[in-house]
Amino acid sequence: MTDQTLQAAQPESHVIGVDYGTLSGRAVVIRVSDGAHLGSAVHPYRHAVLDRELAVDGVEGTVTLPPDWALQVPSDYVDVLKQAVPDAVAAAGIDPSTVVGIGTDFTACTMVPTIADGTPLNEVPGNELRPHAYVKLWKHHAAQSHADRINDLARERGEAWLPRYGGFISSEWEFAKGLQLLEEDPELYALMDHWVEAADWIVWQLTGVYVRNACTAGYKGILQDGEYPSRDFLGALNPDFAGFAETKVANTIGQLGDSAGGLSERAAAWTGLPAGIAVSVGNVDAHVTAPSAQAVEPGQMVAIMGTSTCHVMNSDVLADVPGMCGVVDGGIITGLYGYEAGQSGVGDIFAWFVDNQVPGAYVAEAERQGVSIHEYLTDLASAQEVGEHGLIALDWHSGNRSVLVDHELSGVVLGLRLTTEPQDVYRALFEATAFGARTIVETFNASGVPVTEFIAAGGLIRNAFLMQIYADVLRMPISIIGSDQGPALGSAIHAAVAAGCYASVGEAGTAMGSRQRAVYTPDEQRADAYDRLFAEYTLLHDTFGRGGGTESQPSAGGQGVMHRLSAMRREVFATKHAASITPVAEGATR
Amino acid sequence: MTDQTLQAAQPESHVIGVDYGTLSGRAVVIRVSDGAHLGSAVHPYRHAVLDRELAVDGVEGTVTLPPDWALQVPSDYVDVLKQAVPDAVAAAGIDPSTVVGIGTDFTACTMVPTIADGTPLNEVPGNELRPHAYVKLWKHHAAQSHADRINDLARERGEAWLPRYGGFISSEWEFAKGLQLLEEDPELYALMDHWVEAADWIVWQLTGVYVRNACTAGYKGILQDGEYPSRDFLGALNPDFAGFAETKVANTIGQLGDSAGGLSERAAAWTGLPAGIAVSVGNVDAHVTAPSAQAVEPGQMVAIMGTSTCHVMNSDVLADVPGMCGVVDGGIITGLYGYEAGQSGVGDIFAWFVDNQVPGAYVAEAERQGVSIHEYLTDLASAQEVGEHGLIALDWHSGNRSVLVDHELSGVVLGLRLTTEPQDVYRALFEATAFGARTIVETFNASGVPVTEFIAAGGLIRNAFLMQIYADVLRMPISIIGSDQGPALGSAIHAAVAAGCYASVGEAGTAMGSRQRAVYTPDEQRADAYDRLFAEYTLLHDTFGRGGGTESQPSAGGQGVMHRLSAMRREVFATKHAASITPVAEGATR
Repeated sequence: MTDQTLQAAQPESHVIGVDYGTLSGRAVVIRVSDGAHLGSAVHPYRHAVLDRELAVDGVEGTVTLPPDWALQVPSDYVDVLKQAVPDAVAAAGIDPSTVVGIGTDFTACTMVPTIADGTPLNEVPGNELRPHAYVKLWKHHAAQSHADRINDLARERGEAWLPRYGGFISSEWEFAKGLQLLEEDPELYALMDHWVEAADWIVWQLTGVYVRNACTAGYKGILQDGEYPSRDFLGALNPDFAGFAETKVANTIGQLGDSAGGLSERAAAWTGLPAGIAVSVGNVDAHVTAPSAQAVEPGQMVAIMGTSTCHVMNSDVLADVPGMCGVVDGGIITGLYGYEAGQSGVGDIFAWFVDNQVPGAYVAEAERQGVSIHEYLTDLASAQEVGEHGLIALDWHSGNRSVLVDHELSGVVLGLRLTTEPQDVYRALFEATAFGARTIVETFNASGVPVTEFIAAGGLIRNAFLMQIYADVLRMPISIIGSDQGPALGSAIHAAVAAGCYASVGEAGTAMGSRQRAVYTPDEQRADAYDRLFAEYTLLHDTFGRGGGTESQPSAGGQGVMHRLSAMRREVFATKHAASITPVAEGATR
Repeated sequence: MTDQTLQAAQPESHVIGVDYGTLSGRAVVIRVSDGAHLGSAVHPYRHAVLDRELAVDGVEGTVTLPPDWALQVPSDYVDVLKQAVPDAVAAAGIDPSTVVGIGTDFTACTMVPTIADGTPLNEVPGNELRPHAYVKLWKHHAAQSHADRINDLARERGEAWLPRYGGFISSEWEFAKGLQLLEEDPELYALMDHWVEAADWIVWQLTGVYVRNACTAGYKGILQDGEYPSRDFLGALNPDFAGFAETKVANTIGQLGDSAGGLSERAAAWTGLPAGIAVSVGNVDAHVTAPSAQAVEPGQMVAIMGTSTCHVMNSDVLADVPGMCGVVDGGIITGLYGYEAGQSGVGDIFAWFVDNQVPGAYVAEAERQGVSIHEYLTDLASAQEVGEHGLIALDWHSGNRSVLVDHELSGVVLGLRLTTEPQDVYRALFEATAFGARTIVETFNASGVPVTEFIAAGGLIRNAFLMQIYADVLRMPISIIGSDQGPALGSAIHAAVAAGCYASVGEAGTAMGSRQRAVYTPDEQRADAYDRLFAEYTLLHDTFGRGGGTESQPSAGGQGVMHRLSAMRREVFATKHAASITPVAEGATR
């Protein structure tokens, strides 16, 4: 009996990838040898996103949330392990004993405040109605003023880490959200032992060990060259914040693809998987997708297009890219500089449009034709020529992550006429997100980190018309990831590496990932027309997104308009709901 | 038997007012003595507005219309006389022999091209599929380039009449639309003997006599101090246009409230009214409404708020008001300077929103509550505080009539977020139209023609929430016309004067019209908040509506963006529909 036949006679090994999205968690069973998807299951979060009021199962009373808040409930994440993982194993029809590892990826920056043993603050009795005790989801955008202060001070002091983040720390990240927590609910801040990325919190639940992953620690936690922002810097923001990094944030760092520990007995009981199997270090949904798309070489930009879009790309050079989310050594794959950029709203904007601006007659006609409303609108919109609708939109309904890094910006539709139809606006929103992507690609190209291939992944790749718009607007062929479960596959790839099945994430990606090259290619004539529209987009982008004027001399248009409208909304909220957000209001007046 | 008892024993006299709107004509039977409304009837135009394709009953074939076109079919207007007038008389239950006069008012500037006897060109065999043979409705906005040329040349030559129109001739008016007809279909232009205001064409149908009313001749036909623009000026626009005023436009002028002639036998048969009764000189829906609201004194601004809003106000001084529609001596009432301004889209914008951007669930909930969708949205919107939605809109979905006089401008909604709901945008559109009104009022105030009272008329006065927004935004009490049929009552008032029942329109208005003063008064706190939003509106208004940059140096934002998007739409149309608009295209290449 040769080694070959011995191997063939052994049962195939499997890994589980669990992808934690904004509204649900998905588990997929993957064959280690070739990445085949054998079964999957989705579990929606019971509380979805709490963005209007804090109303939690089993908790009496509710609290109205201020504008721009977005919370989640940590136990919803554990429910995914209990439900989706065994369901996926059952769907795959495999023997659970053949599973050699499990990996997870998460939205980021999504933060869980916990006490020393990892119990989330909202589960500590007495905190059930305190908004700051809950998970702050990535799209919690209420810490913009805190981010502004961090950025202003860092710029003023010339902090060396600032250029690594394109010149801006986002309001979505660990430090801005942490500063908001301190200043709005100092009592809870004092109670909090750890400020934990959800990506790491779920691994903690799986293993019983708290390991901070190198990816979010770098991109969201401002860990650069082994250092966090100094006590001195943090104390200048607020004396009580001086110890934030060392006491609340810092922890052992785990490299991507390493094992964070073995599956605990408790988690084995939840999932039905063998105790002790490898659990890979936590990771981010976008970053984990690069090896799934066989796109870890320098210049290959992977755009994970879902509710939002995240762009990740490796490079062998370290450069300053204005307005990028960040560059982290080994942030995507060990040995290369990982760059990240993003668009805060993409699929979310299309979904918002369908939910809020599409008449019943359209929905009825889609039903009659047996297609989804998105398919119906896409059909109508795709019959148009470029420029026919006369519209330009700004895709800032959820703020702008790159390259402006400003979540007080907001969406615009310009060019509306009495003849404007729903499909016109729908198409303009598609185009706006493509223009946003082009703005990012051009910024990388101009910064010495050229984008040589654009690979699309995520749910939106199913819309061929949208993909063609991206090809035409970018004037680049669009490659498409082979898997429709890119993040879960990526988590599974990391699990396979953590389990020792492959020597590196790159090697595992080559075996288990896939992509089709140049599925969509640009049409010259449409690309020319889009160049004209992109010029108008850029004018609006810069008018509303840059500069801005001063209080005494408000700029014409200018960033100022959107910021002032946001401020007014907050004022109205504070007046109207003063009573209902007492815990928040008390903290804010401190 | 005294004179007193003799008078009492005589049957009451009645007059008929017929109001020609954008989509239908309405006839109202009015008692001469006190203006009581005794009965009314509406007849919708069979062809409504042709703005996408020319498809006419009894005509084989269709023609796709270019962007911004809006046509009507003249026979639809005659049908109103045949249907609505007898229906109204029947509804009133009066003896037709007690009717002593009929008056009409029309949208303007709405133009009918005719041969010598008043037959519209579209009824001349062989022209059924030529778009230029049809009525160009007021909101036909495809002659902007022609208006631009008229304005540029008039400014260059220092034409004395230009300041009477706030510095701009509108693309909606007689000369811009006439120049378009000449240059796009010269064959039809040659065939045309008269370029007739629909307001006068319908009186021509009633009397058999063509009389040009002093109102539209002044406001829309550039007749100032007895003179039209010179041959020299017109020939400089296009040599073939030199004789336009004298050969196609000029005709006997009739003063408002005068009789244009007696009702013809033919029209008596159509209407069932006595032949020979007085038919008052034609008039415009807005202008005719001033006496209905007892608002003909200097400083009383009447806003007729319907699909669009027209503002009319008398003054004893002649002043230049930038961006007004015009000032005409005796244009509203003989002996005073009549000023006009306007907003091209108001109710039209709200209707467009409801038709195109309101989800089925909202419509279903409105039905469940037994209210209209407008009432339902108003209820939701009125629960908000000023500034709560975080939005600013520009009310230019149908261009801007005052004070920018530019129909290539288009609507904007800024401040959109993933949490923005339909009622938020609905409210923002309400507010945008109020900001547009404030821009007009402030311009009059700053030009030495102060607005001392703001009187609202038209269909939108039924929305109390909208009226309150206007009071708060304008910081002025809002008076409300007593009649819900202001224009038809105004036409009836003019008919009563033409019939000799009153000595003047003012006197008739005092007896037959009515208004309630200060029905809505401003709230100080809301007015303060609206001042802040109005400042933002003004920034956007000036950013997109003024200035604009050049081709080589496009302005950031700037009027340029909207103009360039419009140009691109037209280019796409020309490429896409080259075949179907042959008659137009041929003319254009000449």
